[in-house]
Amino acid sequence: MQHIGRQEWLIPDMYYPELTASKNYVSHECICVLNTGDADADIFITLYFENSEPISLRPVICAARRTHHIRMDKQTDVNGDPVPKGVPYAAYVASSVPIVVQYSRVDTTDGPASFMTTIAYTK
Amino acid sequence: MQHIGRQEWLIPDMYYPELTASKNYVSHECICVLNTGDADADIFITLYFENSEPISLRPVICAARRTHHIRMDKQTDVNGDPVPKGVPYAAYVASSVPIVVQYSRVDTTDGPASFMTTIAYTK
Amino acid sequence: MQHIGRQEWLIPDMYYPELTASKNYVSHECICVLNTGDADADIFITLYFENSEPISLRPVICAARRTHHIRMDKQTDVNGDPVPKGVPYAAYVASSVPIVVQYSRVDTTDGPASFMTTIAYTK
Amino acid sequence: MQHIGRQEWLIPDMYYPELTASKNYVSHECICVLNTGDADADIFITLYFENSEPISLRPVICAARRTHHIRMDKQTDVNGDPVPKGVPYAAYVASSVPIVVQYSRVDTTDGPASFMTTIAYTK
Repeated sequence: MQHIGRQEWLIPDMYYPELTASKNYVSHECICVLNTGDADADIFITLYFENSEPISLRPVICAARRTHHIRMDKQTDVNGDPVPKGVPYAAYVASSVPIVVQYSRVDTTDGPASFMTTIAYTK
Repeated sequence: MQHIGRQEWLIPDMYYPELTASKNYVSHECICVLNTGDADADIFITLYFENSEPISLRPVICAARRTHHIRMDKQTDVNGDPVPKGVPYAAYVASSVPIVVQYSRVDTTDGPASFMTTIAYTK
Repeated sequence: MQHIGRQEWLIPDMYYPELTASKNYVSHECICVLNTGDADADIFITLYFENSEPISLRPVICAARRTHHIRMDKQTDVNGDPVPKGVPYAAYVASSVPIVVQYSRVDTTDGPASFMTTIAYTK
Repeated sequence: MQHIGRQEWLIPDMYYPELTASKNYVSHECICVLNTGDADADIFITLYFENSEPISLRPVICAARRTHHIRMDKQTDVNGDPVPKGVPYAAYVASSVPIVVQYSRVDTTDGPASFMTTIAYTK
């Protein structure tokens, strides 16, 4: 099937909670990618902060005809450092081929998991 | 009334929770379709996974001038198998006529139901 | 200021929960309208169901330079009947002037309120 | 990098809960801005209500190559008054350069935090 979507996506509201109080879920965020096409997608994520320069994550791949739910708590930047907890941030997602991106967060700070989601912004 | 919407929709973040701890709700997902037009919509859903080839669900119908909240826990693929639990997946939705699609999830893994929703992506 | 937005909006996933177990919130839905312009908006909402013909609600107004969070539990159809509880439905929203529409639900079936929201679909 | 996004964004469903019953989160709302470009964004937020004229908040800045998660509970209008609690409202966001806007709410009225989010509407 053809590639559907766009090559640039933006997510203004990201936050990696410091606490986890659920037995079933760890507080986490996902940048969920769907690649309907026949070529692998090389995905480059840049994180933006409130008081410091942007940083680049290590590239990830969403293979042809696959989804990749990119767990932010498992990513590292180009220096090997993890995504910081407890600070507001945002993301710019660039892909080598058209993809579709949805952002979701699971917050278990207070115990029971609470979910939020939105299709990311694209031009 | 005329058909409003599009014939192709995508949902990158789908997940069918393995656990249910609410008395009132079963953890479930819905692909909610609205067909405002005067012809029935034949709906073809393809599921994408992280580590295996896409699969096709048995077609469903959203009749003319109706909504259909397609419960994913009640669907089967063309081989009769249900949607797998506990694995990240995504969906491509194709319709014979223009429709509008919204995706919602109810997660009761931790007890009280938590909801998330978004209009799906369309070109 | 000028009117911003569109005159037609669609919401595929609506549901009015039958139960309420929170002391602070009644389970409810809102079709939230923003009218930035200098003319009042006459708003016509049509509800779609899974197994019966659409029904029209009594028209509502969102005045010039105002928002109107239209509580679905306070609306009636043209016969004076309320929105039915416990059944999946959807909505088509038409306005006499351009507006912006966001749909939100508060579900307190299990006790603590859970929220979901999305900008509605427009062409 | 270039500026990505739009200069006008709208959020029909805003509400600042009166109660907070979580130890970890205060009930709050955020208008989250991402400014990918090399010029600072001057951001002008107008609030709309159900029964009174719109009011303007004191301008805020989202610096070049930064995100700004604008906490509504920390903003004041041009007279120095805070955002009112317990009343439905909406927002029009104007920026001096293209930005991307996402709206999120954390409600802890009933105890455990519940989250909702959506990319705001833009033309």
